[in-house]
This record gives sequence, C-alpha cells and structure tokens, in this order.
Amino acid sequence: MLTGGPSSTVGVNRGPFLPDVGVVGAGPVGLAIAWRCAQRGLRVVVHDPAPGSGAAHVAAGMLSPVAEAYFGEHELTGLLADSAARWPAFAAELAEAAGTDIGYRTDGTLVVGLTADDLAEARRLWSYQQGLGLPITPLRPSALRDREPALAPRVRGGAVAPGDHQVDPRRLVAALRTAAERAGAALRAGEIARLSDVDARVTVVAAGCGAAALTGLPVRPVKGQVLRLRAPGRGAPGFRHVVRGYADGESIYLVPRDSGEVVVGATVEERADTDVIAGAVLRLLRAAVDLVPELAEYDLVEASAGLRPGTPDNAPIIGPLPGRPGVLVATGHHRHGIVLTPVTADLVTELIVTGRPDQLLAPFSPDRFIPEKERRWN
Amino acid sequence: MLTGGPSSTVGVNRGPFLPDVGVVGAGPVGLAIAWRCAQRGLRVVVHDPAPGSGAAHVAAGMLSPVAEAYFGEHELTGLLADSAARWPAFAAELAEAAGTDIGYRTDGTLVVGLTADDLAEARRLWSYQQGLGLPITPLRPSALRDREPALAPRVRGGAVAPGDHQVDPRRLVAALRTAAERAGAALRAGEIARLSDVDARVTVVAAGCGAAALTGLPVRPVKGQVLRLRAPGRGAPGFRHVVRGYADGESIYLVPRDSGEVVVGATVEERADTDVIAGAVLRLLRAAVDLVPELAEYDLVEASAGLRPGTPDNAPIIGPLPGRPGVLVATGHHRHGIVLTPVTADLVTELIVTGRPDQLLAPFSPDRFIPEKERRWN
Repeated sequence: MLTGGPSSTVGVNRGPFLPDVGVVGAGPVGLAIAWRCAQRGLRVVVHDPAPGSGAAHVAAGMLSPVAEAYFGEHELTGLLADSAARWPAFAAELAEAAGTDIGYRTDGTLVVGLTADDLAEARRLWSYQQGLGLPITPLRPSALRDREPALAPRVRGGAVAPGDHQVDPRRLVAALRTAAERAGAALRAGEIARLSDVDARVTVVAAGCGAAALTGLPVRPVKGQVLRLRAPGRGAPGFRHVVRGYADGESIYLVPRDSGEVVVGATVEERADTDVIAGAVLRLLRAAVDLVPELAEYDLVEASAGLRPGTPDNAPIIGPLPGRPGVLVATGHHRHGIVLTPVTADLVTELIVTGRPDQLLAPFSPDRFIPEKERRWN
Repeated sequence: MLTGGPSSTVGVNRGPFLPDVGVVGAGPVGLAIAWRCAQRGLRVVVHDPAPGSGAAHVAAGMLSPVAEAYFGEHELTGLLADSAARWPAFAAELAEAAGTDIGYRTDGTLVVGLTADDLAEARRLWSYQQGLGLPITPLRPSALRDREPALAPRVRGGAVAPGDHQVDPRRLVAALRTAAERAGAALRAGEIARLSDVDARVTVVAAGCGAAALTGLPVRPVKGQVLRLRAPGRGAPGFRHVVRGYADGESIYLVPRDSGEVVVGATVEERADTDVIAGAVLRLLRAAVDLVPELAEYDLVEASAGLRPGTPDNAPIIGPLPGRPGVLVATGHHRHGIVLTPVTADLVTELIVTGRPDQLLAPFSPDRFIPEKERRWN
C-alpha cells in the first residue's frame, strides 16, 4: 500500500476513522476500484454528486479490443486485449455480487462497409488488426448476410470479430454501485473541488474529465453524441451482433440489447458541451438506416451527449500522481472506459495493496505527461 | 341561445348554478370558445384533465390560408381565409386580455422547391392558388435569396405568401386560458367520458380526437411528428420567414421564432400512436438541412408527436349535433386548428347566443356525416 495498510497509520493520520481509500468519481472505473478495494478489506469512500451520470451514462458499452485496435496504438491495444480477457469472469462475478443482469452479451461484432470506398477503409484496418494476430475474419457478402440478414443489401462487405462483446453501461454502473456498497464501500454525494477535500490515506482520482482540474493532467473532454432507439412493439432488435460500420465515410456503431434498445453512436468531437445537435443526429440516423434499414421503423427514445476523458496519446492515465504522495490517477479512458474497467480496477487495487505498479501499467503512467523538471519535485 | 339565455331556464334546468356553457376540451378551440362566451356574460366551465396537452402542444402554429389552399378544398379554403383575416385583431385582443406575448409574427411565408421536380410540384399548387385570387407570388431565385439568404444555394425556386403568418401554439393556449379565466370561465380537471357527464345548458364538444367517442362523429387521429430545434448561443434563427418546402419529395415546414426555436414538421400519418420514429426524424432533419443548411448546427431540443383530429373531407365539424339538443360540436380541425381558432370561437359563440348558425358554417355542419335516417330522430 502506498501510504499504509488498512490498519496502520502511515502518512498523515487524520483520525481512527480515516478511510483507507477515497475514490473521486462514481463512474464504472471509480466504482469498480471501490468494489475491488472493499473486497480486499479496505475501508472505501466514493465521492460523486451524481454517480453514473458521466460518460458511462451515454456510452454504448462495446467491449471491442479488436475493432478498436488502431494504427499506432500498440500499447493501448495490448491493454484492451488484457481487459477484454478479464471481462467474462468480471461480468459473472459482478452479476452474482449485485444480483442483477448487466446486459453482458457475447454475440460478437460485425465490421461492415456500405460502399466500395467504405469497405476499402475497413479493409486497411482489418489487415492491420490481422497483422497483430487479432481475431477478425473477413466474410464473403453471402456469409455476412447469413449471419445478419437485417443488414442492407447495399452493404458491400464485412468481417466478424467474434471476441468483441458488449455490456449495458447503465446496468453496469448500477450493479457496480450495489456490489461496492455490499462489499462495504460508502458513497458520498459531496463535490470534490480539490484533492485536499478527500479525507483518506490513498486518494484515487477516477473523475473522468474532472481529473484535469484536480490533477493538472492533460485530460480533455471529447464530446460524443449518441442515440437510443427501441424496436417496435417492445420486441428484441432484428439483429444480434454489434454492428460497426463505415457508411459514406461516417463511422458508426449499432449495439442491440435484449431489452429492444439499440444504441447508435457516436460522434467524436473536440467540444466540451453536451448539446444534441441536429446535424449530428441526422448523420447518425442516416448511417444507421443505411446499414440496417429496419431501424427506420424503430422508436427514437433518446438523443444525448457525453464527454469522454481524452488524452494526448488516446491512452488512459493510470498510476501514482508525481509530486502528490498518496494520490493515484485512473482516468483518460477516452472511448475505452467500459472495456478497460476490469483491468483498471484490478491493477489500481494491486497498486494500493502492494505499493508496486504492475508492469502492464508502465506505458500508462501519469509520468509521461509531467515534465522531467517537475518530476524531480517528488 | 340553443337552450335558453344566461338568465333563463329553458331546457333541462338542473339547478340555479347550472353553467350556461360546458366546454369539453381545453385546446385552443375550446378555450377560445370559453373566452368568447365568458365575454358575452355566459357562465362557462371548461373540462379537460390536461389543458393544452393535445394537438396544439405539438403544432407549429402556421396561419396559412394561402399555402394550405389545396385542390378540391374550396369551402375549407374560404373558412381559412376568413379566420386568417380575424387573426390580427384576435391576436391583439388576446395579448391584451392575457397580458402575455403569444408569438404572433407577420413575416410571411416562403414556399420553396429544392429540386426541379419539387419546384414543379410547388408550381402546380401556386397556379391553383393564384387562380383563386390568393396572394402568392413566385419569386426569381435571386429575389428569393435576397429575402432569405439562409436558404440553400441548391433551392431551385420559390414563392412568397406575405399574408401567411404564425403564432406560438403553446403561448396561445396559455394566453387563452388566462384570458378565459379572467373573463370568468372556470376550468375543471375531470375527464368527460360521456356527454351526460357535462352539467350545462349547452355542451360544446371541442375535444379534438376525443370527439369521436363522445359524439360518434367520424373524427380520426392523424399523427404528426415534429421537431423543435434551437439556434446556437440562444440567438434568433438566421431566417425570419416561415419556410414551407418540398425537398426530394418530402413536404416540410420550418417555423422560426424570436426565442430561437425553429419548429420542423410534420409527418401526416394514419396512426393513433404518439411514438417518435427514427425514420421520420431522419426525413424531417434531412429535408430541413437540405433547405436551410445552418439548421445542422442547431440544437435538437425536442422530438414529439401529436394527433390531429381528421375528418373524411379534411374539413372541420362545427355546429349542432343532430339528435342531441343542446350539444354543439367544434372539432375535426385537422392541420388547421390554430388558424381556425378565431372563426370557430366567434361563430360557435354566436350560435350559442343567437341560436342561429352563421351561413359560413353551413358546409361544416355535423349533419353531413349523419345519415338522413338518423337525422330524422331530431
């Protein structure tokens, strides 16, 4: 443990009831850390004026280590794969601990291209992903349609990533909250304006975009607009796979849930507002209906926007905050907060308990954004 | 008066405090009738469990006697023109009586065609409207753009209907309610399941689609889906005219308000649900942005659906209900409830006070939907 075990009083002891861990932020990452720490017998308090109202509330919940493996993000790709591998056990343990369904589904993901140009764009990425040895397999159009007859006849081609799954982020947050509380963690509704507001031996900043103001780290909001449709008559959607598609140059995804909901996302915008903009809704709907025509008949039940915590290299920031003993950071998860929840929670908990960062975390340390000069202040 | 004056007891006298007029439905038509009747010294009670929550809540509020003059609806066209002519004085009197702004604007309407086909379609209708002597004037593209630079360069042509104005239906309902109550009318929240639930000398059924169950008249719901956009930064929209357009075969309208709101409507569907459907939103947004590109940057703040009270001949049903002495009907206004509010209120009030229908109402009598045989039961 960085500043003393659960029953010791190393560091600043502010009283016998000082929590071991104070987590700032009750999104999936913060709650999962709280759950894991509480399971280890640590006294945990989570601070959030509106638990689960951040990026996760809008997120689609794709668990896509393969389809999200992009050029030049090799280390992130490794972390995504590691966390995705933890998901089946994590999902089972969480559903059991919380006693609720978290919408975890393993139907796999189809990546499709609407036009020849779209397909060429998709193929470039598949080649890269296949070169990394990742499980993605191009399909003949007939095989694609056999798997998912709801795809538009116009769709030129696609591939299947059978290991790219999904979870419902809203259910995930609710379940994590229940599990964390059942394990003994406490939630506090107060706003944390500065790190000194947190009374705990170890502070974990899992505040998403809010981490920037608390830590000075280069976390910036990346706006995402998302739609939620619902199949008519309260039935299930007419397709089972997550569909990620390129449609006339638009990159979108469609995530069908058992409840009948289909999440359509998402814009990626360097903006800090959460307004829903007509043009974005138009582009999402057009691409969605172009790829899966039956969606035109679905109810539009929600249009919303969230702010992902982005970083300069698109990778998360996980580890000790230089110059601030007893402060850990777990933020900057950008588009990958849901898939990275298990590995982040496991490794941050290990770091708190053992005081030693796992080697996996090395590329994601806050150090990389702190100038050499400032690091010497430690 | 059909069944006795305000101080007489002709007809069934249910006690000294029996209201003179019981209005079923607190939409614009019902409230305006209540206001006018109360102004005449009649004791009025309006029954509605949710005042203003019907078609008017979704309506755009176009006052379009010209642009809504369609082939084969000659008598309706006359009534629209008559009511539109009453609007300036009605609006002024109402704003004064209620002490509120009702969003009445006289900037006029542009009718435009996006493609050559759209323009041809529009021109057919202009010719018809001009043949009726209605004020609609085709504009050269340059003149069209001078009037409204926000129109897309692609827009092929258009016409101006300077006398087609607008009002904000939500403000209208609120103002009518205030004015009616200030004039002495009372609102009751109870649901009226049958005509005998109304305790009044004269009952006026202004219940929109609900009139069918109460009267047996052929009023059916005609679903309309509508969007509400808002100009960025809380500014006014970048165009002043109501824009009615044909865009790749879609017929839509754009109604800009001083508040920054732009209403985009509307579907016309033979359906009785109020679900908002993805495909309809897509078509409305696409046509809107095709006609006025800056709308892509507007916030999408509301997507909703309402049910217009349609009739077999698209004309309203106004007058005494055959076989039910003391019962008047004012419903079936379909897409024209807002523009027809003043004339409906004036003529129904005259009918109640004098007992004689104005000649203007002859084509709109409920008689036309009651078989000869049943009419003899009177």
